[in-house]
Amino acid sequence: MPFKAPLSDIQFLLEKIVGLDQLRATELFADADRDMTEAILSEAGKLCAEIIAPGNRAGDEHHSVLENGRVRAAPGFAEAYRAIAEGGWVCVSAPVEHGGMGLPVALQTAINDMMSSANLSLQLNPLLTQGQIEALAAHASDELKELYLPKLISGEWSGTMNLTESGAGSDVGALVSRAERNEDGTYAITGQKIFITWGDCDFVSNVCHLVLARLPDGKPGTKGISLFMVPRDLPDETGVPGVANSLKVVSVEHKLGIHGSPTCVMEFNGAKGWLVGEEHGGMAAMFTMMNNARLGVAAQGIGIAEAATQKAIEYARERKQGRVGGTGMIIEFPDVRRMLMTMKAETFAARAIALANAVAIDMGHATGDEEWTARAALLTPISKAHGTDIGHEVAQLGVQVHGGMGCIEETGAAQFARDVRVAQIYEGTNGIQAMDLVARKMMDGGAAAYALLDEVEAFAETARGTLPELAKPVFNAAENFREATEWLVEQEMQDRFAGCVAYLRAFARVLGAHYHLMAAMAEGGAGPRTKLARFFIKRILPEHESLIAQQRDGADGLYAMSVEELEAV
Amino acid sequence: MPFKAPLSDIQFLLEKIVGLDQLRATELFADADRDMTEAILSEAGKLCAEIIAPGNRAGDEHHSVLENGRVRAAPGFAEAYRAIAEGGWVCVSAPVEHGGMGLPVALQTAINDMMSSANLSLQLNPLLTQGQIEALAAHASDELKELYLPKLISGEWSGTMNLTESGAGSDVGALVSRAERNEDGTYAITGQKIFITWGDCDFVSNVCHLVLARLPDGKPGTKGISLFMVPRDLPDETGVPGVANSLKVVSVEHKLGIHGSPTCVMEFNGAKGWLVGEEHGGMAAMFTMMNNARLGVAAQGIGIAEAATQKAIEYARERKQGRVGGTGMIIEFPDVRRMLMTMKAETFAARAIALANAVAIDMGHATGDEEWTARAALLTPISKAHGTDIGHEVAQLGVQVHGGMGCIEETGAAQFARDVRVAQIYEGTNGIQAMDLVARKMMDGGAAAYALLDEVEAFAETARGTLPELAKPVFNAAENFREATEWLVEQEMQDRFAGCVAYLRAFARVLGAHYHLMAAMAEGGAGPRTKLARFFIKRILPEHESLIAQQRDGADGLYAMSVEELEAV
Repeated sequence: MPFKAPLSDIQFLLEKIVGLDQLRATELFADADRDMTEAILSEAGKLCAEIIAPGNRAGDEHHSVLENGRVRAAPGFAEAYRAIAEGGWVCVSAPVEHGGMGLPVALQTAINDMMSSANLSLQLNPLLTQGQIEALAAHASDELKELYLPKLISGEWSGTMNLTESGAGSDVGALVSRAERNEDGTYAITGQKIFITWGDCDFVSNVCHLVLARLPDGKPGTKGISLFMVPRDLPDETGVPGVANSLKVVSVEHKLGIHGSPTCVMEFNGAKGWLVGEEHGGMAAMFTMMNNARLGVAAQGIGIAEAATQKAIEYARERKQGRVGGTGMIIEFPDVRRMLMTMKAETFAARAIALANAVAIDMGHATGDEEWTARAALLTPISKAHGTDIGHEVAQLGVQVHGGMGCIEETGAAQFARDVRVAQIYEGTNGIQAMDLVARKMMDGGAAAYALLDEVEAFAETARGTLPELAKPVFNAAENFREATEWLVEQEMQDRFAGCVAYLRAFARVLGAHYHLMAAMAEGGAGPRTKLARFFIKRILPEHESLIAQQRDGADGLYAMSVEELEAV
Repeated sequence: MPFKAPLSDIQFLLEKIVGLDQLRATELFADADRDMTEAILSEAGKLCAEIIAPGNRAGDEHHSVLENGRVRAAPGFAEAYRAIAEGGWVCVSAPVEHGGMGLPVALQTAINDMMSSANLSLQLNPLLTQGQIEALAAHASDELKELYLPKLISGEWSGTMNLTESGAGSDVGALVSRAERNEDGTYAITGQKIFITWGDCDFVSNVCHLVLARLPDGKPGTKGISLFMVPRDLPDETGVPGVANSLKVVSVEHKLGIHGSPTCVMEFNGAKGWLVGEEHGGMAAMFTMMNNARLGVAAQGIGIAEAATQKAIEYARERKQGRVGGTGMIIEFPDVRRMLMTMKAETFAARAIALANAVAIDMGHATGDEEWTARAALLTPISKAHGTDIGHEVAQLGVQVHGGMGCIEETGAAQFARDVRVAQIYEGTNGIQAMDLVARKMMDGGAAAYALLDEVEAFAETARGTLPELAKPVFNAAENFREATEWLVEQEMQDRFAGCVAYLRAFARVLGAHYHLMAAMAEGGAGPRTKLARFFIKRILPEHESLIAQQRDGADGLYAMSVEELEAV
């Protein structure tokens, strides 16, 4: 049951909906002509479907394990990774001057999406490396860049992010890992980090840890944190990894999903590290890495939604049950059809939002225009939270379509749900994303949100002639949501936070409907995409109203019951 | 981290909301005075919290396994089961004349709820036995009753349901298992059954299989199916299990959850069976068993919601993160509070619906009144589908409250979600429940639904003086839902089915709000239950509107895309 790369959907979105052509009009991406981008996607799709996807079940069945202090990956992972690295697929958006292809983040996102469909556990490895490449490119010294970037981009080495400690998760500023200045300009890093994805790896020749720690004179909180490059094996003068650094994997977690991806507890015992960015300026660098990773995690959710949908459609086509009309297959049952349509419509909408986000990032890079940067910043928490929520919901619908077989592990349907679940939590829980949306991303008084809603409404206006039945509800939803935003920006933080998850979801509903409407218009208001758009707008978009009702309820109701009452009643 | 039996919630619901007193006014349940029912619940709660719950993790970690043709249960299960059996807790609603206590199904449901919180895998064993007891009591010959019922009620033997075959799941009528008449009046059963819960068990002295099969002269479809009692070991003339019957466990499934509950493939090779009910009349008996089991499965969902909520509250109280107001614990975060309030409010509503359902069953038994029977029939699919949907949603919220720890298996939060997932599928998928609601349960033209809505509206009227802010939205929601029902009963089946899941969920929203309003009124419109009611009515009830919008969209949109388009686009 092979995974089929969704090239037609992705190319349709890039060309007709999110405006890849705008990128081609910039100097930075002038070379990314359509022949080239289609060839890239097609090659990547082939790799994902033919080389990577077949190993996905093995990664679930064979948890990665710790042996003699080293992590042993699941069978087949090394070979699949080699194909990724040798094809240059670790990070296609990496800068040209360090050996990368300098392609748009939009393409990187599409590739991450397909690779996540194929094997989420394995894909986490290049995803983390991508974040590290971006952080180093933006903040590291030239020496570090020259040493590390080519190896990371080629996939010879892999990268990790070491933020979380047992007492410092969402609140990174609480971390207690220490850094001491060595006499030679390097640093000695000491501390324990948890939840370190691919904290060790047996198919690369070095693992490069980016570690947050506090110098002796670092202030409490996030302002006193510095970032260090701490390689597993210390490169010698020629750049070849030699002497082992003073760090180790203490244990590998036993997890709900992504069994093939080792989640490590790391211990640093005076490990040698090199400063990245300024002393006490680690959070800025880490945010670069995290924002990249957030869009990457959105792509993970979407990739799983895609894979789960394909699997469910295939099962429903081939599973006979009862005497329903037509073929007798369960795909003819109304409620099975509802689930499949929901899966398709949600996946399309989430992918459109993520790709629009990616294009905004690229346009920001290419033009320096602050409106694009603000658009990208606004969309990032929506892409991440909504993309991963949809990934999980769609995967759970996939389980349901499979009926009793859905809970039998050999089927693979449940694996998608288990694998994607943590994506709603890591890189900032989806609650944290929603807080980011209503606080930091509304520091402009809602300007970026209003600009986007203006576009949604303007498009609905132009669609009104062709598709009045769809254009009108989209316009009205945007108006409702604009009012919700006007209400939001007037509130104190506590009241914003009390409805932030509902607000984010409502936003995603409105945007999803907008992109579906664009898709319908792109095919002239008739055709399969129009039918899917109709389904989304009629059945799913109305949810925005109850979400807004939730959002506007404020904080009082949440705290009305005391903690003691919560426990007692 | 022990589970605490939610006695105050359950007793409040039974006494103040669903009307246990009505039962006490009947002859059948006149003995079930308050002292007695409270003592029963308190004892059951103690058993669940102290004896059963501590073994729950072991059941997840040690899958039950097949060894030399016999299933070996997880460590500790035998001891916990013995406590259940010796205490008389297998089936408290079993008929007095066969050694049961004859207590109301309402108490049985409350006990199932608590036992599911404690250990869902183990609880499935008595749950299946309960269904078998009910089916035998209603349909078996006196000889079979005398032989089997006392042993099943005492827990000496356990019972299973053998319906599903690989080609016959939701469509039971497609089954191909055969029965031949033996000369001695018994039958020889041959066939393979799948998904047989507790198909073998090493802590009872016999396993009694109720098996659906077709006699040579049985018509195709459900009308040609007969039901047979097929014990694992054949009782000798004194009733002691002796010679092994011709049946075996072929394999045990590797599942997403309930690892401690062996899900078996069973093979019957001319196994000796005794007819239960009439020849070709097996479905009637099986329906008795399934309806009982559906309410039992509802209780499973609610029990898991309860356990997950308790665990999440405890974690959130003790997990420090950041510098949020008050204690610095994550329970002070607005979005964590939102999740916990949602978990509490949903669990309460789902439990109220299930207990109201149970009381309707009991009133039907006690009075023979067809209105009660119709009420019970109407509520059963809602209890089952909604109770298990909520079980899963609340368990997933529990994972989210735990943040990164939620996906670490040792925490136990993910186990709840994995364990309860199949409850949305077995005993009729939740889609099948919704079809049952809009088809069979609306054959009265909506009369049972309108009668219930009348009560909802009448209560909201009486509450309007005390709690206008809550009573009004409940009244309006009931009116909206009445209109949705009026629309529904006018439609062709295909259009009903197209929105059936949304219709069922909307119904549950309205009923949940109604019971919350009753709870608020029961404490005089002020107090913790009023605060929880307010949360539900303000934040969750509004969903009924978007659900109704979905429900009324009809079937056209579902089938607009062809199967080929679903795959291609």
